[in-house]
Amino acid sequence: MNRAFFEQLSAAARDVIAREIAAGLVGENKALAGFDPVTAADRAAERELRALIERAYPDHGISGEEFPTVRPDARLRWSLDPVDGTRALLCGLPSWAILVGLIEDGHHIAGMIDLPAIDETLIAVDGTTWRNGAPVRTSGCTELAAARFSTTDPFLFSGDEARAVKRVRRSVRLTRFGLDAMAYARIATGGIDLAVENSLHPHDYDALIPVVRGAGGHIGDWSGGSAFDGGRVVAAATRELYEAAVALLA
Amino acid sequence: MNRAFFEQLSAAARDVIAREIAAGLVGENKALAGFDPVTAADRAAERELRALIERAYPDHGISGEEFPTVRPDARLRWSLDPVDGTRALLCGLPSWAILVGLIEDGHHIAGMIDLPAIDETLIAVDGTTWRNGAPVRTSGCTELAAARFSTTDPFLFSGDEARAVKRVRRSVRLTRFGLDAMAYARIATGGIDLAVENSLHPHDYDALIPVVRGAGGHIGDWSGGSAFDGGRVVAAATRELYEAAVALLA
Repeated sequence: MNRAFFEQLSAAARDVIAREIAAGLVGENKALAGFDPVTAADRAAERELRALIERAYPDHGISGEEFPTVRPDARLRWSLDPVDGTRALLCGLPSWAILVGLIEDGHHIAGMIDLPAIDETLIAVDGTTWRNGAPVRTSGCTELAAARFSTTDPFLFSGDEARAVKRVRRSVRLTRFGLDAMAYARIATGGIDLAVENSLHPHDYDALIPVVRGAGGHIGDWSGGSAFDGGRVVAAATRELYEAAVALLA
Repeated sequence: MNRAFFEQLSAAARDVIAREIAAGLVGENKALAGFDPVTAADRAAERELRALIERAYPDHGISGEEFPTVRPDARLRWSLDPVDGTRALLCGLPSWAILVGLIEDGHHIAGMIDLPAIDETLIAVDGTTWRNGAPVRTSGCTELAAARFSTTDPFLFSGDEARAVKRVRRSVRLTRFGLDAMAYARIATGGIDLAVENSLHPHDYDALIPVVRGAGGHIGDWSGGSAFDGGRVVAAATRELYEAAVALLA
């Protein structure tokens, strides 16, 4: 896969979302309990991404947040989150992202975290992550005590998980909340060193994996593997920092 | 005071901060316990803002986060936070702001929330708030159940305060964390409806007051007044929403 195709996906999805924002976004609740918003922008952007992929790679599979999976058994499969951070978008905040991952036989071989509000596109292909055309590296941070830590919402954790995340929070230099996929973009570009989350869906993390790895970072689950049970993800600037976080989370 | 002078302050501070970012920011800890970062960018930008104000208004007072107050008894006094959200800046995140307030005999008569990372400048003068030259209004939201709520760090609250903020969090439609002054910018532009914080210093909130009011919002303390004891601030899209939040916080 080449960067140009991801750039094409970014440009098309940005156009669609900008039109929906200009028309006035309304958050519609798709949850039975609580508030899980979706907007016309999410749906229109996913339709656009799917159409471009269908045209270029008609034999690839596609799964996404808003519509059913097509060709689930294809060797190459795209994983789409047209708007990661719909709450941020509904608040006029810049942390929302367009996420695209590409998986070959279970391996995350390419991906994009696109941040339209700050005009920043991270694309990972062939083991390297690029920001607006220039390669990026993580900070190289190896120590929890020096780490800048992010988790989107501390109230998503309860019981043992909450205690585990509190141990991490008390071991790091500073903590930032509320970032969704922007935290993983910043791990790739060296601004944040560590992120821990739970309850992520594959469309939330499939794009993050190649972007973090292509910048020299490490991403896995809370147990030191990559099964991502319970959508539990740890991403770090280095393997050492990842292992240190996993030791505290266990 | 006119908008042009604020625009001049914005341009000058942005230049200084951009140079410091390009030179590589290092967060230096100014706290005796914990982590309270300051960077060369904070200090250089405050020096630049002070120099411009001294030149234009040599009889005005000036207070700011990083240096001692001059002419504290002047009828007109400037209140400066050269980088609000130093943690965000150290993480390469876009929520940091340049804050400038102007106070006349205790009244907050003008102010600026400047968000360089997203190229957005909010300036309040003569009772109107402008974003990049166009007047803005809050959402007009009056109901907690419909409100988009922000607080920067839920772990800054403890005891009764923590329980009070939890009551608010459980009454609103959605909660966003980690925004610092960007939350108040979004109240003014209609993206967020309610913000609650404690432990703010005058240099943190002096600029926010005219910006929120000039967009039709209401800002006061947790008791329904404007003493801001304990740095406890509530800002809302409307007076009704402010009163509803204060009732829950009491």
